[in-house]
Amino acid sequence: MRRLNDMDAYGMLGKVRQTKPLIHHITNWVTIYDCANMTRVFGALPVMAHAREEVEEMTGIAGALVLNIGTLTPELVDTMIVAAKAANKRKIPVVFDAVGTGATRLRTDSAMKILAEARVDVLKGNYGEIGVLAGAKAQVKGVESAGLEGDPQQVALRLSSQLKNTVAMTGRTDIVSGNGTTYLIDNGSPMMGCIVGTGCMAASIIGCFCAVEEDYALASAAALACYGIAGEIASTRAEGPGTFKEAFYDAAYGLNRSEIESMLKVRKLR
Amino acid sequence: MRRLNDMDAYGMLGKVRQTKPLIHHITNWVTIYDCANMTRVFGALPVMAHAREEVEEMTGIAGALVLNIGTLTPELVDTMIVAAKAANKRKIPVVFDAVGTGATRLRTDSAMKILAEARVDVLKGNYGEIGVLAGAKAQVKGVESAGLEGDPQQVALRLSSQLKNTVAMTGRTDIVSGNGTTYLIDNGSPMMGCIVGTGCMAASIIGCFCAVEEDYALASAAALACYGIAGEIASTRAEGPGTFKEAFYDAAYGLNRSEIESMLKVRKLR
Amino acid sequence: MRRLNDMDAYGMLGKVRQTKPLIHHITNWVTIYDCANMTRVFGALPVMAHAREEVEEMTGIAGALVLNIGTLTPELVDTMIVAAKAANKRKIPVVFDAVGTGATRLRTDSAMKILAEARVDVLKGNYGEIGVLAGAKAQVKGVESAGLEGDPQQVALRLSSQLKNTVAMTGRTDIVSGNGTTYLIDNGSPMMGCIVGTGCMAASIIGCFCAVEEDYALASAAALACYGIAGEIASTRAEGPGTFKEAFYDAAYGLNRSEIESMLKVRKLR
Repeated sequence: MRRLNDMDAYGMLGKVRQTKPLIHHITNWVTIYDCANMTRVFGALPVMAHAREEVEEMTGIAGALVLNIGTLTPELVDTMIVAAKAANKRKIPVVFDAVGTGATRLRTDSAMKILAEARVDVLKGNYGEIGVLAGAKAQVKGVESAGLEGDPQQVALRLSSQLKNTVAMTGRTDIVSGNGTTYLIDNGSPMMGCIVGTGCMAASIIGCFCAVEEDYALASAAALACYGIAGEIASTRAEGPGTFKEAFYDAAYGLNRSEIESMLKVRKLR
Repeated sequence: MRRLNDMDAYGMLGKVRQTKPLIHHITNWVTIYDCANMTRVFGALPVMAHAREEVEEMTGIAGALVLNIGTLTPELVDTMIVAAKAANKRKIPVVFDAVGTGATRLRTDSAMKILAEARVDVLKGNYGEIGVLAGAKAQVKGVESAGLEGDPQQVALRLSSQLKNTVAMTGRTDIVSGNGTTYLIDNGSPMMGCIVGTGCMAASIIGCFCAVEEDYALASAAALACYGIAGEIASTRAEGPGTFKEAFYDAAYGLNRSEIESMLKVRKLR
Repeated sequence: MRRLNDMDAYGMLGKVRQTKPLIHHITNWVTIYDCANMTRVFGALPVMAHAREEVEEMTGIAGALVLNIGTLTPELVDTMIVAAKAANKRKIPVVFDAVGTGATRLRTDSAMKILAEARVDVLKGNYGEIGVLAGAKAQVKGVESAGLEGDPQQVALRLSSQLKNTVAMTGRTDIVSGNGTTYLIDNGSPMMGCIVGTGCMAASIIGCFCAVEEDYALASAAALACYGIAGEIASTRAEGPGTFKEAFYDAAYGLNRSEIESMLKVRKLR
């Protein structure tokens, strides 16, 4: 494991805290509070707005757009596409968390539709979800990855090449492929898998970092590393998933340079 | 208080943790996170999906369906019925939490409609809600029970006989009637009444246990006992309702055989 | 800073706890749980109900109606107006939290529409939101105040005079104008600005107090003071925004006479 000299994760976090970008979410009703609050404790300003009548305008003042189909309806997906096109026009990053893709036709079709009709700068999902979108043999049980055949790094790389964007695939090791580069992030704690919302909040933080760093693959890798480090710190302070969740917010809010620099576990390939 | 020799509550919990059934919820927007998270910390996999276009398919891969009308609309109720029929066809358990029944005509009519158009395997509510559905003199203030005239055990038994299902009536003493048997569960802590969502999460856990045990009355009683035990443990670690909530998740996640066997307070009648 | 002899904030809190008024919310999907839970720990009964078909009936049994446009749609705004008219007819207080007014046309227009079509007894917002509604030079970034030119007290007073109601403007110092009186509340902790939902929950507590005290300006000031005191107490027990949030619920639940009387920081002008 070598420390990446060209990844100034703390520097990016500092920019988020200093510039407080507005992160416009169109997300699900389960983790909507968590996405907003994690965005806030990382230093950015969350806004959740899903009315067809205002999404273009809200995206118009945002630093990033985060989409999440965790509790999708066809109407909401159409609204996401409207917002994504507005984000594309302004060239602000669009992060799309393809929650549950593979579990139902509606989810798979909706993910495909979003990818077809708008530019998604960072496509995020668990191993199963990304596997399904890459055409690999993969399974999703509800919103959980339930298996992916083949080499996950190859799957991420192939899909990233095909979509010409960044793919962030979260799991035991997070894999980020984009701009011809693959990052492997080994930060995080098993406790993060014991609560609901870990994946959704990760997409929010990717949005925060992409709002301040143009290299979206680098930004996504740094975001996942910082987020994972906060999880690691929190797990040492928790007695279970309930106290972990609160400690996670505390740790994210308090992240400092020495924690990030000493704990960062990111490998860069090719 | 005698320990039930024929109730292996810990064994059921172990099955939940081992088989990780998918628990499909169509629920309310207030406690949707809590229902998902409590399901998760008990060891099952939650999924929240309410689009008309996907509910049959999602129910098709689930181990149980949990319905909750806490923030109902007529459209959502129709979708619940579609999902319940799909669950009935697959013979997976349908748990219905009749939140607020009695407070408005829409809630009472919707509860009646769900019970009329699909089979509900476990009907859950507080004393007031179940009382209203049983035709007893009962009152509901918003989503709180505000009184029930008559013997609650008789009310539960009568409604269970009429619906030929299991009725789980939650309150100071939880009453479960089904399969000709009535269970009284005295686990729980007053602190559980000081936070929002206790009842909704109870329905989720009933869903988890019914997914692994075919005797739904037994499963519901065991679920409420384990859930109440977690609440009791948490109340000893809390300084108020906020820290209680987090300790509740911790305690549920950590529940072990000795806690359950030493703390179980279930009586079985007839 | 002088203690207000004519403000018995603890007495009002006691009335809330004793009479447990039902607080009907039509609110947003981000902080809906927090609004419900804070209402509960302050001693009142929350109910969240947004179906067009039941809002009049639910408002019909409530002690106050709290509206919040944090995740509005045009349909939801129409439903809010229906509920507000029902509340007006029954002369129960209507509290309206104008979340995000100024950030998009939909939000500003919807806030104006609600104010035009129903009587709002307490209009709540941050400095930016109230500034926009008062026609001052003010800016709102998402749901955050991003500046207000001019004297905030004058802005609140002018808008209150124009609407003939109470205006509660929250920020470092909370300003409440109504009934020809202005209150300045200096309770609160910077930590309250580090989590999502602080403003929304404040509106809920204003609803609780207005349900038991007919002088809505006095009730709003007392509510914000008690709420701020709970925040101050919580901040001394917290290690960051996560633990703060739980401690906030604990502190609110436990608020006692000596805390309130020793910590109250309310000034009354004219």
